[in-house]
Amino acid sequence: MSENEIEQLIRLIAKLPGIGNRSARRIALHLIKNRETLMRPLSHVLTTTADAIKICTPCGNVDSCDPCHICNDTRRLDNVICVVEEVADLWAMERSNVFRGRYHVLGGTLSALDGRGPDQLNIANLVTRASLPVVEEVILANNATVEGQTTAHYLTESLKHANVTITRLAHGIPMGGELDYLDDGTLHAALKARQTV
Amino acid sequence: MSENEIEQLIRLIAKLPGIGNRSARRIALHLIKNRETLMRPLSHVLTTTADAIKICTPCGNVDSCDPCHICNDTRRLDNVICVVEEVADLWAMERSNVFRGRYHVLGGTLSALDGRGPDQLNIANLVTRASLPVVEEVILANNATVEGQTTAHYLTESLKHANVTITRLAHGIPMGGELDYLDDGTLHAALKARQTV
Repeated sequence: MSENEIEQLIRLIAKLPGIGNRSARRIALHLIKNRETLMRPLSHVLTTTADAIKICTPCGNVDSCDPCHICNDTRRLDNVICVVEEVADLWAMERSNVFRGRYHVLGGTLSALDGRGPDQLNIANLVTRASLPVVEEVILANNATVEGQTTAHYLTESLKHANVTITRLAHGIPMGGELDYLDDGTLHAALKARQTV
Repeated sequence: MSENEIEQLIRLIAKLPGIGNRSARRIALHLIKNRETLMRPLSHVLTTTADAIKICTPCGNVDSCDPCHICNDTRRLDNVICVVEEVADLWAMERSNVFRGRYHVLGGTLSALDGRGPDQLNIANLVTRASLPVVEEVILANNATVEGQTTAHYLTESLKHANVTITRLAHGIPMGGELDYLDDGTLHAALKARQTV
């Protein structure tokens, strides 16, 4: 419980998302107990990752190479671009393993409150990419939040003159969802988009 | 989402206590976003802490000096030793700011199931310390679990020949506790140890 190193370590760990002071102390003690097997390797990997990380110029993904491994992958389709808000969303799409095209990471949503306008997002680049002859479809995979949908609407306007089909992810009842627990908005969207069986 | 650095970082973060894969990914992205302000400082502090950490020879605390700053503190009382299971317990006692004596960290509990006998714990050292003429009282601040109390019982036996008063923390209703939500064991202990007002 020195005032210097250990306190400093706990303070930094407590800055990580989802971790409070109690968890930070627990993690710090765990690290101290596993100094050689966990603490030093983690320190090493943090530095090597910080050194290696690059933001992919075409799509905005983070990777150790630029263009990223998805943009570099020749087996992926060039004719469809999936627009996501954050890298975390790109990872979620990749885990689901259903999309074989390219991505475009916006870097957030438009937000009047937080003062994020179109210039703060990776939009100009998207319009350029979507205007390439090879691109046929742009999927707007924004989050189904107010800000996400506002951004999607803005993107639709921006992409009007690029010769592409613009689609968005379907809204509806999530798998395993029970009607009784769903909000009105979701039920409304699911009912409106009902399909013949 | 490189297969190398980022995946490796997520794998190591997911090894921390209380952190699953989803939190690990979230933390990794947060670190990547705050590369210079959080990722590199954390890496640095992890290494400096790993280098600096010492186990205090007298008491078993972790600190950057040996003996630790508590054992070195001349303003603390030498006549009373508080025995705790883990360094986390010592930190909890220190945060409460009510104890001004010395500590002794056992390093766990006796456990037949996990094969931890008296030799695996810091007990022999405790008996030596408790036998010093200056020591008048040993407080057994073991956790109120079955293993903690078994260990406390064993310590009482071990300290029989050291000329010290052996005490333990009081059991009873925690502050803010409601009777209706307390277990029978706590109620039983609180009733047995009732005090005149």
